[in-house]
Amino acid sequence: MSTGGNNVATATNKQIILRDYVSGFPKESDFEFTTTTVELRAPEGSKSLLVKNLYLSCDPYMRSRMGKPAASGIAQAFTVGKPIIGFGVSRVIESGHPDYKKGDLIWGIVGWEEYSVVTPIPDMHFKIHDTDVPLSYYTGLLGMPGMTAYAGFYEICSPKKGETVYVSAASGAVGQLVGQFAKMMGCYVVGSAGSQEKVDLLKTKFGFDDAFNYKEEQDLSAALKRCFPKGIDIYFENVGGKMLDAVLLNMNTFGRVAVCGMISQYNLEDHEGVYNLTSIIYKRIRIQGFAVFDHYDKYSKFLELVIPSIKEGKIAYVEDVAEGLEKAPEALVGLFHGKNVGKQVVVVARE
Amino acid sequence: MSTGGNNVATATNKQIILRDYVSGFPKESDFEFTTTTVELRAPEGSKSLLVKNLYLSCDPYMRSRMGKPAASGIAQAFTVGKPIIGFGVSRVIESGHPDYKKGDLIWGIVGWEEYSVVTPIPDMHFKIHDTDVPLSYYTGLLGMPGMTAYAGFYEICSPKKGETVYVSAASGAVGQLVGQFAKMMGCYVVGSAGSQEKVDLLKTKFGFDDAFNYKEEQDLSAALKRCFPKGIDIYFENVGGKMLDAVLLNMNTFGRVAVCGMISQYNLEDHEGVYNLTSIIYKRIRIQGFAVFDHYDKYSKFLELVIPSIKEGKIAYVEDVAEGLEKAPEALVGLFHGKNVGKQVVVVARE
Repeated sequence: MSTGGNNVATATNKQIILRDYVSGFPKESDFEFTTTTVELRAPEGSKSLLVKNLYLSCDPYMRSRMGKPAASGIAQAFTVGKPIIGFGVSRVIESGHPDYKKGDLIWGIVGWEEYSVVTPIPDMHFKIHDTDVPLSYYTGLLGMPGMTAYAGFYEICSPKKGETVYVSAASGAVGQLVGQFAKMMGCYVVGSAGSQEKVDLLKTKFGFDDAFNYKEEQDLSAALKRCFPKGIDIYFENVGGKMLDAVLLNMNTFGRVAVCGMISQYNLEDHEGVYNLTSIIYKRIRIQGFAVFDHYDKYSKFLELVIPSIKEGKIAYVEDVAEGLEKAPEALVGLFHGKNVGKQVVVVARE
Repeated sequence: MSTGGNNVATATNKQIILRDYVSGFPKESDFEFTTTTVELRAPEGSKSLLVKNLYLSCDPYMRSRMGKPAASGIAQAFTVGKPIIGFGVSRVIESGHPDYKKGDLIWGIVGWEEYSVVTPIPDMHFKIHDTDVPLSYYTGLLGMPGMTAYAGFYEICSPKKGETVYVSAASGAVGQLVGQFAKMMGCYVVGSAGSQEKVDLLKTKFGFDDAFNYKEEQDLSAALKRCFPKGIDIYFENVGGKMLDAVLLNMNTFGRVAVCGMISQYNLEDHEGVYNLTSIIYKRIRIQGFAVFDHYDKYSKFLELVIPSIKEGKIAYVEDVAEGLEKAPEALVGLFHGKNVGKQVVVVARE
């Protein structure tokens, strides 16, 4: 940190820049690690904050921000030549906003850099009140992915005690929590993941009744039939494509599919076809997409359930932590190859 | 009609027999027209009825009954060597059931033959009380397809005034009514069908705001974009496959798809793939299959709405009538080639 000619302290600001719009699987070379300088103040007369970023979150939906603006999905596209953005946990260094003061902790959308100037937006930035849990949890279990699991399971799946629940990408940030919510409700829960290590985690750490490694199954429908001899009542969809096709064959009458994501499709130039949609008629299935930001009104209710459960050890949580912003591109890219075991976090600073 | 040796009157009974399970498009040669003899009485000691069939209904869902039992969908498979079954309007000739008497008119599942023995089953057989409308309407507008349109539109589509509604196979038994319900609610309604004659019918007879011939469109998504510059809020799905794919690209946020049928897929050995399902996430779309027999508790409410509307000329209805049971296979097969203009009915007897 130094003091510039205009008496404003400055600091170096490491950043992760998008080199160009991404097609296919993202590669580390799509991102550039650079160092610039930042003035350590919030822009004068603005309602913005200068924040120091502590933890950054790697989330599958970020793939939809990497394409050209027209091709992007629900989220705004990244800007080429600028730091990419995502959810993070940050400390307020200086505030121009009446509701925030120096020292506050927040989680929400920030740049992938050491310091960001952010203008707080409701439902995109949240003050952190309970610091009696690891702060990084606010990138996952206690942040956007946690709320996604909560809203998706309780609001979209219409779960009932005793029902069968299948979760794909089950060891990820969202999946691990969905499985635990389902167990808390008295459901029979099976998860799938892409390695034996993750499968073990599902069964031993997160309390899933059963789990399988989808990469080792020749026939996904047969695997599901083995795990669900009486069929699937609820499918929490994180994957799409072939997995959805296999699930449709194994759904029960009046089954529900909550569509949270379709990570298997995001990097394909041409999506896989899904062929078994006539099951929707025969089985009167409801398939429903949802987005977490339609559900943030339940965030405080969510925290009331989850924070005590963490403290009492009733909810387990596994993070895969990359140390240092320079490791961020590797961590983000690894997500789309299933390299992370648990929620992928990047530590920028531990303060 | 004659009297047999046991003093029971008999009659010849023309029948449409399933020769063998059908694969691909059904052909007339899959069915055999035969004549047998029937005793004109309800089996003694049973709660069955002997009925004389007046009108038979040709419905797309019947395709799912033509395959081998394991491959069939929601409905029970036909039996090879026996008359096929379907919805019809019939007169009770003799009754062993306390709730039915000779002369009653019913609609429900009967054999494709002149006389059937039926055991009335709730939600499969209904007494006809209002005969001040054409009786054949109970195979369509006032029967299963009408209830399908009613339940599908009001219960599954969650419609609101001012929304945009797209109906495929819109001139069919269900589609023509869905469009009119949507207009009654103050929606903007567009339908598609497979000929200029049907398109004209949609616009002039059924009051659709717009309509197009899907066979003349190179690009279904472009056609939908032209008809719905502001996107589709509700899609009433009768078709599936490529049409669903095109619709997904044109759905609005929080759009709803009521899946009634997917007639384009029923005769394919391998279903078409649907590729645009990631739209479900980005647009938070709800896709919901339904079956009319889950909704018959609303049948009397439905009649209270529809019968006066018919009598006051507020609801239009078009039938395509085949005269004589011998024409039934041709009429049924024609359905899967879109030959019918309006609801396909077979007249067995006008009494």
